[in-house]
Amino acid sequence: MTPPTESFPPATVTFPEIPEPDQDAAGQARARHAELTKPPGSLGKLEELGTWLAARQRRCPPRPLQRPRVVVFAGDHGIARGGVSAYPAEVTAQMVRNFLDGGAAVNVLSDVAGATVRVVDIAVAAQTPPEVAEFKVRESSGSIDVEDALTEEQTQTALTAGRTIADAEVDAGADLLIVGDMGIGNTTPAAVLIAALTGSEPVAVIGRGTGIDDNAWMRKATAIRDGLRRARANSAYPVDLLRVVGGADFAAMAAFLVQAAVRQTPVLLDGVIASAAALVAEELAPGARQWWLAAHRSTEPAQHLALDQLQLEPLLELDMRLGEGTGGLAALPLLRMAAKVLTEMATFEQAGVSGQIPQPAED
Amino acid sequence: MTPPTESFPPATVTFPEIPEPDQDAAGQARARHAELTKPPGSLGKLEELGTWLAARQRRCPPRPLQRPRVVVFAGDHGIARGGVSAYPAEVTAQMVRNFLDGGAAVNVLSDVAGATVRVVDIAVAAQTPPEVAEFKVRESSGSIDVEDALTEEQTQTALTAGRTIADAEVDAGADLLIVGDMGIGNTTPAAVLIAALTGSEPVAVIGRGTGIDDNAWMRKATAIRDGLRRARANSAYPVDLLRVVGGADFAAMAAFLVQAAVRQTPVLLDGVIASAAALVAEELAPGARQWWLAAHRSTEPAQHLALDQLQLEPLLELDMRLGEGTGGLAALPLLRMAAKVLTEMATFEQAGVSGQIPQPAED
Repeated sequence: MTPPTESFPPATVTFPEIPEPDQDAAGQARARHAELTKPPGSLGKLEELGTWLAARQRRCPPRPLQRPRVVVFAGDHGIARGGVSAYPAEVTAQMVRNFLDGGAAVNVLSDVAGATVRVVDIAVAAQTPPEVAEFKVRESSGSIDVEDALTEEQTQTALTAGRTIADAEVDAGADLLIVGDMGIGNTTPAAVLIAALTGSEPVAVIGRGTGIDDNAWMRKATAIRDGLRRARANSAYPVDLLRVVGGADFAAMAAFLVQAAVRQTPVLLDGVIASAAALVAEELAPGARQWWLAAHRSTEPAQHLALDQLQLEPLLELDMRLGEGTGGLAALPLLRMAAKVLTEMATFEQAGVSGQIPQPAED
Repeated sequence: MTPPTESFPPATVTFPEIPEPDQDAAGQARARHAELTKPPGSLGKLEELGTWLAARQRRCPPRPLQRPRVVVFAGDHGIARGGVSAYPAEVTAQMVRNFLDGGAAVNVLSDVAGATVRVVDIAVAAQTPPEVAEFKVRESSGSIDVEDALTEEQTQTALTAGRTIADAEVDAGADLLIVGDMGIGNTTPAAVLIAALTGSEPVAVIGRGTGIDDNAWMRKATAIRDGLRRARANSAYPVDLLRVVGGADFAAMAAFLVQAAVRQTPVLLDGVIASAAALVAEELAPGARQWWLAAHRSTEPAQHLALDQLQLEPLLELDMRLGEGTGGLAALPLLRMAAKVLTEMATFEQAGVSGQIPQPAED
């Protein structure tokens, strides 16, 4: 983004330079793939995933994933009062309880994928249990069609929360992070953030979210249009964008994604919410995207625009649109397989298997 | 296929009628998906998978998968002597040993997916350990460009083997089967079988297999052309097709796939080899395809033609082309997730989560 002539104050929270993944380890992984008992390249994207992971772990073969962790960022949005969702805003807090009770999709999928789930209330519009409220910035956020989502101080607090949570997870041993989300109305700010950062029109970023009807679709389109107008008028830096049309949950997710990269911890991105936060995070800290893998292509059109700009190609296409981190979890077993191929498969030499028939040299 | 005027003897091995999956259980799964704490349809293809499994298990919610089983059918092919593969034929027997030692991709992926692997030597051109040779029909098969792959008796023996193996696996408790394959040269008969049954030309079915160069590609194209000519002249029934241009491994896989359907046990199809066998199996027992799920879209073009004709849409697209059952295993965690969603997710009522905002009725 180009700052206007009258520039806004830069962010207080700053991030160090993003480390590069290890291309030597990537090269070792490619060489090892050629020695394993299978035709070279025959595992397709699983081989690319293994190489990707080796480069991020800076070792080949990579370690098997021991502690993948989903962090679900929960937050309400003032815009939900405008009838842009199929569900009432109270569902956000109810779902936080459901996550803690293990009854949500993210709990079930993480059981199968072998990940654990943490829920953090960043801006839920209700009281939540103390164990999830440590990083609560405020209740809900301003309605972004007519007012800023956050104050400057709240924005800084949310960024700090995201960074602190990432640090805590990596310090506790997480070797893969998945960004999840829960928040009625959150596809509307996600669409505005993506439109602002990709130069798209409202019609290109609007999706059906939780499954809205045509009337709600029109209200959502109006909200996105008004939010986008406010974004273009009032935000010059990515941190301003989070303040003006994002929300505390988006700010926390963006900082979390940057800090994961700073801490050299790979991330599986979920759907449109995580992708919107990722787009802002890449503006905050260019190069952070090298640490993220797009798990799936959601049905939300704005997600495709965000991933295109991030040059991330999604691994799965399962018509999912739930959020919570579920798309990331769907891809996790493939990443486990990819790591284990490099760790445990026998080489041609070890297994006593003949290699390819030598081809005559071309004239 | 339309029998010619001078008809060939029908198969000795016959299959009973294929049972229909339970549409009531499918309906119950759809209704349950609407009650679970997520927007209806938001898990996309995971919901379709859960419904599919409920219909095959005849119960909703479905049971979690307890004993998924990969059966790798190993067999050599006379056509491999014609230089249609990048690897020497001895690799088939070497890989059987590798499977038993746990060093192959199918072993590694099955560990992650929670499946067990069985290898059966149907027609390996070498002696294999007794524990895998119980169903051995012969060593290798005739070179299908110039001679029949099998005698009539061998064909019947191979069909019986496939049926017996499926029965044994289901009797031992397998609740999901994955058809794997190993055999240098086996993409050539697979291509001929698929071309014969889909009415395709050689150029439409030829792929790079294990990674052949242009010279081997031309030899393979010639072999497919000659095999297809022999198939069209000499085979009227699907069983004849297996005898004339298939092989003992293909016959066993086809019968295995039919018998899995007879025993109402769902199957994940792997790549071009399993799909060729499936195409023949559907001819042997129309409707059997209702019990099969296409796990992935391989890079072999013939597989796409086979799946199209079977009206099966692949779940994953990972550019895989290894066989062994690896593509089936890549999809297995998604099927586990789909089952567990129906079994373990909380309903809106159980979790005390509000449902959708009632929409005003349309005028």
